[in-house]
Amino acid sequence: MTERYFDDFTVGERFESKGVTLSESQILDFALLYDPQPFHIDKEAAAVGPYDGLIASGFQTLALSFRLFYQEKIINTCSMGSPGMRELAWLAPVRPGDTLRTTAEVLEANPSASKQDRGVVKMGFSVANQDGVKVMSYNVIMMMRRRPEGLDNPL
Amino acid sequence: MTERYFDDFTVGERFESKGVTLSESQILDFALLYDPQPFHIDKEAAAVGPYDGLIASGFQTLALSFRLFYQEKIINTCSMGSPGMRELAWLAPVRPGDTLRTTAEVLEANPSASKQDRGVVKMGFSVANQDGVKVMSYNVIMMMRRRPEGLDNPL
Repeated sequence: MTERYFDDFTVGERFESKGVTLSESQILDFALLYDPQPFHIDKEAAAVGPYDGLIASGFQTLALSFRLFYQEKIINTCSMGSPGMRELAWLAPVRPGDTLRTTAEVLEANPSASKQDRGVVKMGFSVANQDGVKVMSYNVIMMMRRRPEGLDNPL
Repeated sequence: MTERYFDDFTVGERFESKGVTLSESQILDFALLYDPQPFHIDKEAAAVGPYDGLIASGFQTLALSFRLFYQEKIINTCSMGSPGMRELAWLAPVRPGDTLRTTAEVLEANPSASKQDRGVVKMGFSVANQDGVKVMSYNVIMMMRRRPEGLDNPL
């Protein structure tokens, strides 16, 4: 397990996730509960809709791509949550059977001005499908714990 | 059913959703799949974590608040999806048992420069809990169908 703290993140550093395949059933289940637009929940309506077929809710792509990043154990020790996101773009449809991967890059890293125990990292996320098509991008502002005093850097 | 098209949205118009109560079980289910950070999936860890207890994933609050808006049938006829979001802020924790409501306001409404069949609406969302505390805000850029020629405005 990687034991990263705020102090270990440097601007320009990049992280690549494993892939995940998103099934039609998963798209339908998520959308029925959270985003029941016809092109997310109804194959018949979607076939004659603006995307020429069923596509995943952008909220599902967002959450799933973050999960892909999180399971790489890059922020599991230090994450203190997030105050928000910036510049989120849904760039291409995600369709049943697509396999997604997330790339994250450290865009900014600054100690907190008000709290000594943490830093603020702006992380840029990019999500691509099996054909290398970029389907989504977004930036997350992340609060991260600083390395406790006396703890050596194991990296 | 409201049959709204792009042409029916005016800047400053506001929409209020019904409420929804988010249970501990729903928070845990969502987070286990999409955002398995300790303060979202582990009550014991969350109790000594940065939020003094379990809180909902911000991705769940986002998706659920959009669902609340969507079920008001304001965009069900005209929605063509979204190219992205802007200025998303998680402002306060959402805890088990909280009841959320979404307010949406038309911030901008412009015909598409490239496609005659649609317009672009920037909608500002605000999510509040049962105490009136604002827990989240975000802006969504929405593509909306224009009213087909020959169709009267039923509003």
